[in-house]
Amino acid sequence: MPRRSDARQRMVQAAKQLIRERGYNATAFSDVLELSGAPRGSVYHHFPHGKPQLAMEAAEAHAQEQVELLDALAEQAETPGQLIEAYLGRGRESMVASGYGRGCGIAPLVTEGAAEEIPEIAETGRHAFSVMIDALASHFVVLGAERAAAHTLAEAVVTGAEGVMIVSRALRSPAPYDAMLAALLGQADALAPASSGRA
Amino acid sequence: MPRRSDARQRMVQAAKQLIRERGYNATAFSDVLELSGAPRGSVYHHFPHGKPQLAMEAAEAHAQEQVELLDALAEQAETPGQLIEAYLGRGRESMVASGYGRGCGIAPLVTEGAAEEIPEIAETGRHAFSVMIDALASHFVVLGAERAAAHTLAEAVVTGAEGVMIVSRALRSPAPYDAMLAALLGQADALAPASSGRA
Repeated sequence: MPRRSDARQRMVQAAKQLIRERGYNATAFSDVLELSGAPRGSVYHHFPHGKPQLAMEAAEAHAQEQVELLDALAEQAETPGQLIEAYLGRGRESMVASGYGRGCGIAPLVTEGAAEEIPEIAETGRHAFSVMIDALASHFVVLGAERAAAHTLAEAVVTGAEGVMIVSRALRSPAPYDAMLAALLGQADALAPASSGRA
Repeated sequence: MPRRSDARQRMVQAAKQLIRERGYNATAFSDVLELSGAPRGSVYHHFPHGKPQLAMEAAEAHAQEQVELLDALAEQAETPGQLIEAYLGRGRESMVASGYGRGCGIAPLVTEGAAEEIPEIAETGRHAFSVMIDALASHFVVLGAERAAAHTLAEAVVTGAEGVMIVSRALRSPAPYDAMLAALLGQADALAPASSGRA
């Protein structure tokens, strides 16, 4: 028998997957239960504040996974540009592999009016993006970038990653990833430290 | 008395506004009627295919307005970079003026599962972004860029504009506009023609 906490975790993962595929409003508890195989009675036991709570935990899980991915990729990167290339490369692969069927796990909380109705959802969206931007900026600093420039570049990368998840999905083409990567790499090159051989 | 076509147009504009504020699924016909002041009986007269039809026309109207804005801004621009700066500057102003309450009129059709259910909606999303990218690429060519590079830059700009509408809105800060603009301007500078004085 799976432990009760497994069911909870499966529900968060199922919610995240469905929100990435069809957004917040079109994701019903019943769909989450079906996908996760969790028992119906477990919903309000695990998520007493209902769907908003589940969606917020899914968005936080999505951000946390992105941070862990960035941490892993940063281990292999020698420059900010290499980290950006690896991160957008993963996003590109994932988008193509999903048949252009999956977007961001946070964005729907921002775009579907839920944040206007429920302040905690707005705060979750703000926090999730901030966590990703701060993690990326820290890696850029370790890789030699000056702190303010690193934060600006990190904002641009997270913003670009959001944009490609919409435009690439709409066009059913990876081309927007390549176009955005070129712009971000140029920006990364521009902040390369003097030690890299640039003036 | 307003003409019947005025009511239709007001409904498209109202749908666009509501979709930008709260997405596709949370926009009900009743909200569109209330905001537009159109008579209830006019809904299925003007939009016999229902809400999907109204939303597709709203997305197309949004794209058309973006193209018209780009055309107007291109009149004043002497370089691709100036056009990008003016376009993102308008977006930034609009985002701040809306109190971070308004996003894209096309993206919700892509992210809320409607495109997976209704092929015409998927095609509308693809077409709307393509129209904007092609218009922008044409302006870049007129402003001196080589055609393939102009198209790539246009993809990056439209992608960046989508990203900022999510991240800036989530953070309730214009900073993502500034960060994305810096990356895109670097890319624009890199494709500046030799006649601009660059090697």
